[in-house]
Amino acid sequence: MCSVQNGIKEESLFDPKILYNLDFSKSTTQYNPAVSVKDPGEGLYMRPLCRSDYDEGYMSLLSQLTKVGDVSREEFEARFSAMESCPDSYYIVVIEDIMTKKVIGSGTLVIEQKFIRKCSSRGRIEDIVVSDQYRGKQLGKLLVDTLMILSQQIGCYKVSLECKDNMVNFYSQFGLAKEEGQNYMCRRFKEM
Amino acid sequence: MCSVQNGIKEESLFDPKILYNLDFSKSTTQYNPAVSVKDPGEGLYMRPLCRSDYDEGYMSLLSQLTKVGDVSREEFEARFSAMESCPDSYYIVVIEDIMTKKVIGSGTLVIEQKFIRKCSSRGRIEDIVVSDQYRGKQLGKLLVDTLMILSQQIGCYKVSLECKDNMVNFYSQFGLAKEEGQNYMCRRFKEM
Ligand SMILES: CC(C)(COP(=O)(O)OP(=O)(O)OC[C@H]1O[C@@H](n2cnc3c(N)ncnc32)[C@H](O)[C@@H]1OP(=O)(O)O)[C@@H](O)C(=O)NCCC(=O)NCCS
Ligand SMILES: CC(C)(COP(=O)(O)OP(=O)(O)OC[C@H]1O[C@@H](n2cnc3c(N)ncnc32)[C@H](O)[C@@H]1OP(=O)(O)O)[C@@H](O)C(=O)NCCC(=O)NCCS
Repeated sequence: MCSVQNGIKEESLFDPKILYNLDFSKSTTQYNPAVSVKDPGEGLYMRPLCRSDYDEGYMSLLSQLTKVGDVSREEFEARFSAMESCPDSYYIVVIEDIMTKKVIGSGTLVIEQKFIRKCSSRGRIEDIVVSDQYRGKQLGKLLVDTLMILSQQIGCYKVSLECKDNMVNFYSQFGLAKEEGQNYMCRRFKEM
Repeated sequence: MCSVQNGIKEESLFDPKILYNLDFSKSTTQYNPAVSVKDPGEGLYMRPLCRSDYDEGYMSLLSQLTKVGDVSREEFEARFSAMESCPDSYYIVVIEDIMTKKVIGSGTLVIEQKFIRKCSSRGRIEDIVVSDQYRGKQLGKLLVDTLMILSQQIGCYKVSLECKDNMVNFYSQFGLAKEEGQNYMCRRFKEM
């Protein structure tokens, strides 16, 4: 297990203190029963992504979201290091099942630095996924809520995401809204 | 003038060779008359953003795009350094008027590293602007075209952007399209 809850950050993608010190008074959502970063549910543990999560089924969790392909441990670690080498940019939060030692939920906040808006930053929420057997336990909500509060605390002037039609209602609870006259355009270069 | 065309990269945000060696056979757009990265038009010069561009009116150019606010040289340079310290992430291409020594066009490609899709990357085109007196000279087209080709060459599996309704036609020429059932959602935290 990647043990970061007490502030040990050696192998974690970002300083766990950032996660455990978030001010949830800014939360826009309701929980019933109450869950939180420090107590996401019985037997569950929320923390930054760790280098060792390759062995805790991280890629297999992501495959429930989209195409993942074969990724070796070396490739995983190289990517982890590349993210680490961009200061204050990649915040990947995961939820682990302590018994099975598997990562069962994950969400990403990526920060883009800007010159506009007084050299401000813009946040993007990406790759939200909860493993199918753990859905409906408010974990998706807790992940997004956490990343929203984090983006605000970092000082982003805005945060955004793209999602399918059937997810618009889910994301609305976090103060996210479609903006009139604004379009998302995309070009895909390759299948994988 | 920030002189990077001959491969001097000391003060430029990314290695100019990347820009000058792009393979434009992948371009999806037509130019009439012909313009290119090396010859964007008479008296004009295309290059990576430089640290000295604060003095060449860079922030004032950006103010034609959106809110910019007061940014001191120290703040500009701090932001420039912060972008530089994220390897292979920020590609800001500008066009300079050699006579007036002013930056008159700019476009950004930001790279987000992923674990999904075989640890691939995703590109985003941001903050495209051409100074009003220089519009209609194919410079906006050349900037976006350049960033599209760059994103493909870097190996992004997709590239995207957000734009207002009136820009959808402009961006369509680069192979960008709205995707059925895909939504862009946003939350704004503060005005500046
Ligand atoms: C989307 C996903 C992360 C939600 O995770 P989850 O842990 O099951 O969600 P939660 O339990 O936190 O859901 C909280 C609430 O949102 C609701 N909800 C979930 N999905 C919703 C949707 N698509 N639309 C509207 N509401 C939704 C739940 O019913 C629940 O409501 P309640 O609190 O009133 O009962 C999960 O279903 C998943 O991983 N799906 C596959 C990957 C995916 O589509 N990711 C999103 C990419 S944009
Ligand atoms: C958008 C902008 C960058 C275009 O720059 P530009 O250098 O004038 O554009 P170009 O000369 O390269 O235009 C190329 C072609 O696109 C066309 N075009 C320009 N804007 C267009 C639009 N909104 N919709 C459709 N076509 C458009 C031009 O008519 C021209 O067509 P042609 O080659 O058939 O004559 C510039 O107008 C600008 O800076 N606007 C303000 C900032 C802004 O809105 N940025 C975009 C944010 S998403």
